[in-house]
Amino acid sequence: MNATLEQAQELDRRDPLARWRDEFVIDDPDLIYLDGNSLGRLPKRSAARVREVVEREWGQRLIRGWGDGWLTAPQRIGAQIARLIGAAADEVIVGDSTTVNLFKLVMAALHARPDRRKIVTDDLNFPTDVYVLQGAAKLAGNRLDVVRSEDGITVPSAALAAAIDADAALVELTHTAFKSGYVYDMKTITEAAHRAGALMLWDLCHSVGAMPLALDACGVDLAVGCTYKYLNGGPGAPAFLFVRRDLQEQLLSPIWGWFGQRGQFDMTLDYQPAPGITRFLAGTPTLLSLAAVEPSVEMILEAGIDRLREKSVRQTEYLMALWEEMLAPLGVKLNSPRDATCRGSHVSLGHPEGLRIDRALIEEMRVIPDFRFPDNIRLGIAPLYTSYADVYEGIARLRRVIVERRYEKYPHARPAVT
Amino acid sequence: MNATLEQAQELDRRDPLARWRDEFVIDDPDLIYLDGNSLGRLPKRSAARVREVVEREWGQRLIRGWGDGWLTAPQRIGAQIARLIGAAADEVIVGDSTTVNLFKLVMAALHARPDRRKIVTDDLNFPTDVYVLQGAAKLAGNRLDVVRSEDGITVPSAALAAAIDADAALVELTHTAFKSGYVYDMKTITEAAHRAGALMLWDLCHSVGAMPLALDACGVDLAVGCTYKYLNGGPGAPAFLFVRRDLQEQLLSPIWGWFGQRGQFDMTLDYQPAPGITRFLAGTPTLLSLAAVEPSVEMILEAGIDRLREKSVRQTEYLMALWEEMLAPLGVKLNSPRDATCRGSHVSLGHPEGLRIDRALIEEMRVIPDFRFPDNIRLGIAPLYTSYADVYEGIARLRRVIVERRYEKYPHARPAVT
Repeated sequence: MNATLEQAQELDRRDPLARWRDEFVIDDPDLIYLDGNSLGRLPKRSAARVREVVEREWGQRLIRGWGDGWLTAPQRIGAQIARLIGAAADEVIVGDSTTVNLFKLVMAALHARPDRRKIVTDDLNFPTDVYVLQGAAKLAGNRLDVVRSEDGITVPSAALAAAIDADAALVELTHTAFKSGYVYDMKTITEAAHRAGALMLWDLCHSVGAMPLALDACGVDLAVGCTYKYLNGGPGAPAFLFVRRDLQEQLLSPIWGWFGQRGQFDMTLDYQPAPGITRFLAGTPTLLSLAAVEPSVEMILEAGIDRLREKSVRQTEYLMALWEEMLAPLGVKLNSPRDATCRGSHVSLGHPEGLRIDRALIEEMRVIPDFRFPDNIRLGIAPLYTSYADVYEGIARLRRVIVERRYEKYPHARPAVT
Repeated sequence: MNATLEQAQELDRRDPLARWRDEFVIDDPDLIYLDGNSLGRLPKRSAARVREVVEREWGQRLIRGWGDGWLTAPQRIGAQIARLIGAAADEVIVGDSTTVNLFKLVMAALHARPDRRKIVTDDLNFPTDVYVLQGAAKLAGNRLDVVRSEDGITVPSAALAAAIDADAALVELTHTAFKSGYVYDMKTITEAAHRAGALMLWDLCHSVGAMPLALDACGVDLAVGCTYKYLNGGPGAPAFLFVRRDLQEQLLSPIWGWFGQRGQFDMTLDYQPAPGITRFLAGTPTLLSLAAVEPSVEMILEAGIDRLREKSVRQTEYLMALWEEMLAPLGVKLNSPRDATCRGSHVSLGHPEGLRIDRALIEEMRVIPDFRFPDNIRLGIAPLYTSYADVYEGIARLRRVIVERRYEKYPHARPAVT
């Protein structure tokens, strides 16, 4: 197709979501940021909101801030996120990290299936998920069955279904694989878990905010997800968790804390779990970090998650067309699914020198992708602010690094970024 | 003594720490804030630092912020807090809430004493501590022995020592009681735990930043503490945890997460706990909330914790002298220890109408104390910014509320603050 920057700019002019880019702090338009799947950009509204929470609410309202709205922030922001994932407002709550939330839900699930000994996951899962499962399995006396991917890109539903038997207590998977971007069939796998009598827990970190999700329609039991990737909540922003409404009163968090206590400010000394989703909170929520999440989630809702998904698919398709023309002839592989229906919002390109190429892009080409072993250069599309010109420039500069062998001067050490 | 505001103002003029008050955002000098033991005031440096982290680091550096210093913030701030509590730099780490950190350490301790079935605490402990112990006891098959206070103000070391027997795995106590302000004898009780072969875990939430602590000198095994009270870290700021160095490699957090993994960015799928204190981290730390903690801890270190304690003792003595003259004749009781050596930095005054008095102070007298059932009006001294005039005005306005029976128009409902 002989791709040009001008074509990309024309695509940007025709993009109905293009105006959202102006809602972000982008001080340096020549910096090509393709890592919104690790840390989303800063929305201008969030900067303003954090300043307000610090300077007016904390500074002036002091302890009264809790009564003004801090106390209900986990439920309020949870209800907004619920709209993005096809859940009811009272099924989602925000607080603690993804890891801690995973631990709570995994332990609650294992306790609810005491006669079953198996936890099923696979080796495309994010490391912290597997670590949590290993730790919980040790605590609760379960065993972990890690289904292996054949190609490093997908794990077909059938292979997973085969591992989910009558001894399975819990199936835990990451809905969009963090390396390949493969998107699992949520409905089919959830149904397979239910047929076997197991509970299903989805990690939505690499999906939420980039595509519509339908947790209730798929009958999902449990889910967690982070807010600092496509939700643009800021570094280490608190994660959310989802528990299907009819399971909430049956499950118990292993971490009994005062924010999950019925009648918290009665301060009685016998733990009585709060009704509903609130019982899955533990300690005091990190308000300054929570503050940045709320306006960013509102922006995603305003832009419309279906329209964002549509743009994301167009942009990943465009990226792959550029790959085919400009990079495939240089030996760069595609480490993501070709089929958009099972692909998330990032694309991984494989090259044996991927680590050093990534480094050269950051150090001298003003492109920020990220890298995941062994060979994945991950390019993230955040449809709320990524432009077609970003995608074009990212690929064009990547090509230059390879053609000019600019990566050769960098060491084989890994970069210290997430 | 016929106390007057002028006398208080003279005490402020002679206070060598008075200049620190200017380091805080105090837009309304007539608002008497005596709740720094719940939520510390906003330091000007912290407001500036949060703005820098949001606008420059997140906004411009984006994912590179992790390499710039975000990744090491839990250890770096931990090392600063270590200097406040008599610990080594590599014995403290910041991240997660007090509740989650308590859960980690309690589970680790119970796992390290598998043949012992008892956990010892008392009924002056903060509710979330007791809830965590109840939940952990249920998970690990232990039982909880809650020693009772006779007077609601103290639990003598001897009563605790009597409960700590050869079946005790763990003793967990809050070092400064959240209602009465009673300060436990850390060394004596820790020794009693060790004589019985139990591990000792101190909750330092109401102590840290208000008095010097000597964890290593007292032989303490484990501790947690929050950063949003006397450390002025902001609403819900992440908590810290302490593990004595020689115990670190023997203990294992129950929550196996990627921030506690050896070689985190290798992203292998087998959990191998990181060396040292880092293994007690779990998920991604909440950077915006962490950002506010660092400059506030530095301020405490600059002012000097011994000098802060000295001023705190003077101010609580002054407060009690005012109580004796102005409030005791009206039937207000002292619910805190008289003896400064076992009293923290807040004083609780008891009155049967305490809840409504607290409400009247907030609503119409421009005084912010807080209230804890059944009758405690808690008045917190934060020696870095509380003035003697604050103390005088707080007591004088409290007297007016009682004399003029201003509380009678308020309902008997509890206020929604922590």
